[in-house]
Amino acid sequence: KRVTVLAGDGIGKEVTDAAVVVLEAVAKKYGHTFHFDHQLVGGAAVDAKNNPLPEETVASCEASDAILLGAVGGPKWDNNPPALRAEQGLLRLRKQFDLFANLRPVKAVSTLIQSSPLKEDIAKDVDMMIVRELTGGVYFGTPSLYNDEEAVDTMPYSRKEIERIVDKAFEIAMKRNKRITSVDKANVLATSRLWRQIVDEKKAQYPEVEVRHQLVDSVAMSIITSPKDFDVILTENMFGDILSDEASVITGSLGLLPSASIRSDGFGMYEPVHGTAPEIAGQNIANPAAAILSAAMMLTYSFDMLEEAKAIEDAVYGTFEDGHFTGDLTKDNPLGTKEWTEKVLQRLQ
Amino acid sequence: KRVTVLAGDGIGKEVTDAAVVVLEAVAKKYGHTFHFDHQLVGGAAVDAKNNPLPEETVASCEASDAILLGAVGGPKWDNNPPALRAEQGLLRLRKQFDLFANLRPVKAVSTLIQSSPLKEDIAKDVDMMIVRELTGGVYFGTPSLYNDEEAVDTMPYSRKEIERIVDKAFEIAMKRNKRITSVDKANVLATSRLWRQIVDEKKAQYPEVEVRHQLVDSVAMSIITSPKDFDVILTENMFGDILSDEASVITGSLGLLPSASIRSDGFGMYEPVHGTAPEIAGQNIANPAAAILSAAMMLTYSFDMLEEAKAIEDAVYGTFEDGHFTGDLTKDNPLGTKEWTEKVLQRLQ
Ligand SMILES: CC(C)[C@H](C(=O)O)[C@@H](O)C(=O)O
Ligand SMILES: CC(C)[C@H](C(=O)O)[C@@H](O)C(=O)O
Repeated sequence: KRVTVLAGDGIGKEVTDAAVVVLEAVAKKYGHTFHFDHQLVGGAAVDAKNNPLPEETVASCEASDAILLGAVGGPKWDNNPPALRAEQGLLRLRKQFDLFANLRPVKAVSTLIQSSPLKEDIAKDVDMMIVRELTGGVYFGTPSLYNDEEAVDTMPYSRKEIERIVDKAFEIAMKRNKRITSVDKANVLATSRLWRQIVDEKKAQYPEVEVRHQLVDSVAMSIITSPKDFDVILTENMFGDILSDEASVITGSLGLLPSASIRSDGFGMYEPVHGTAPEIAGQNIANPAAAILSAAMMLTYSFDMLEEAKAIEDAVYGTFEDGHFTGDLTKDNPLGTKEWTEKVLQRLQ
Repeated sequence: KRVTVLAGDGIGKEVTDAAVVVLEAVAKKYGHTFHFDHQLVGGAAVDAKNNPLPEETVASCEASDAILLGAVGGPKWDNNPPALRAEQGLLRLRKQFDLFANLRPVKAVSTLIQSSPLKEDIAKDVDMMIVRELTGGVYFGTPSLYNDEEAVDTMPYSRKEIERIVDKAFEIAMKRNKRITSVDKANVLATSRLWRQIVDEKKAQYPEVEVRHQLVDSVAMSIITSPKDFDVILTENMFGDILSDEASVITGSLGLLPSASIRSDGFGMYEPVHGTAPEIAGQNIANPAAAILSAAMMLTYSFDMLEEAKAIEDAVYGTFEDGHFTGDLTKDNPLGTKEWTEKVLQRLQ
């Protein structure tokens, strides 16, 4: 299997390095071969090639079976013109490779729950999967114009765009607890009314799945007051951006959350939910768990290597259970990025 | 002073009744006269007049100095065509009376903090004011179209629309702790770039105010992880809808949160943040605190009766300190809506 590795900016390099050594250990143990091709994206690519998504990077991704991404962005590029901003690399990757389904699992880990801002009885046992539409809506709609006097963004959705993400959510719900909360703002938005209609149509094909429509403002409350009530959360792009970051706080550490951005043929891009954290970059203190768990999602969703994925997850959670933590999770003798990864590797032997 | 009372639907009648008797008590004590004119809005108006905002209601509001609103909406009207939905009454009131500034204070009350889903040390001492633009953006942009195959919403903002809400936020910040967090999604949206530019321009006029730009997804995290860090949160319409509902959970009771929707000349509409709660309507169990505190905001923002407003707030918080609660806050001998209001009235004598 060929994997393009896009470390990106900030701590992206350290955490993808960790994920790569873990994948190599898995390859060795289970007799697979992974080829890794490292390429530039984001701010690093702007600096080197004046383009947040250079052609060589696109070519490498096209020749690969999956992409492993670190993180992109940073204050250095924030005042660039839009086309030369680091995040453009990410947005263009999503669009160009048609990665319409963004999966963000949020799962409480009992050993870490004390770091949650929520009370323990509310945060414990949370296990939800956010399914976010990633290539449509206001992120990509035209016109998107701005001058000194006025600005406009456009939020379009076609039936086809909605149907494929709704299908994906039902597929995923069938493998989980068969409950979907579909998020919209149907009392205000036209796109939400089409969204709700299509969800209702698909529901007829999956009679076992319980579907609830809930307004986005109400979901923003319930995610905090009763996060255990959610199984699959299905949402359009902008709402998904906000709600998935909101939900990420439940577990007590952003350094723990992986994500997958996939299309229908198995190709996908895998990346931690956290950002580039430039203030700690290069210091060997970043938590690589989210990147390593993203690699496990790659094995699950792109390579259908379920046993191998489970081995990685068990090694990560087991390392926490053994009492090994990076500095974001403990003040008490934290391990460095490499040292913590070493513990995971030991568990994988 | 003339006040149009729009009870609306569900528990709207009970809670506005409570607010009206409290206002009458204040009028008596301080020697004011308030005239109350009761009119229909929302689902009740759809049922009676086939129009969520009847002409008589508009005429009454035009002849008044302020509007006191209960709540609108309910499942009964959710499948109506858009123009006949209960919420249309509210959206049209906002637009027609140009109520562009929605103020939602979120203040932790020490006697109630144990009901918060957040840990006590995170929730206590929270005191923020959300300033939400209320008459622009994707709520009112055209085209807003939907057919079986595609849908589109439009998010426009003009310089004028942004300037007036930004001005309002700076004015409010000057009376508080002089810190503004301006919310946007400037890495994706054109409207956010204009928003950010105008905030920076205004900042030059208020050198004392500390301004931070923060992306909406990041704010959705910080509101839960470090709510005490916020003083004034300044946001456009859609983001404000989501973030203000999210923030409302911090205090432990939605039944406590008031809001004001104002324009520049002092005219305003005052309403609790909570909804119509049809399942408990008419049972004398709803918590009227949010409606009563909304009446206090009316005294502050529309009538400039600051002492009277403070008297209401003290009476409400004092009633909690005395250990009197409605059923949403205690299971232990809760008071009914009227009985709890009676305790507030006793404190106002
Ligand atoms: C970097 C940014 C464009 C991106 C988004 O808004 O989608 C990020 O917040 C995310 O959620 O992956
Ligand atoms: C009822 C609805 C249209 C309204 C809104 O979205 O503005 C409500 O959620 C609010 O926040 O006042």
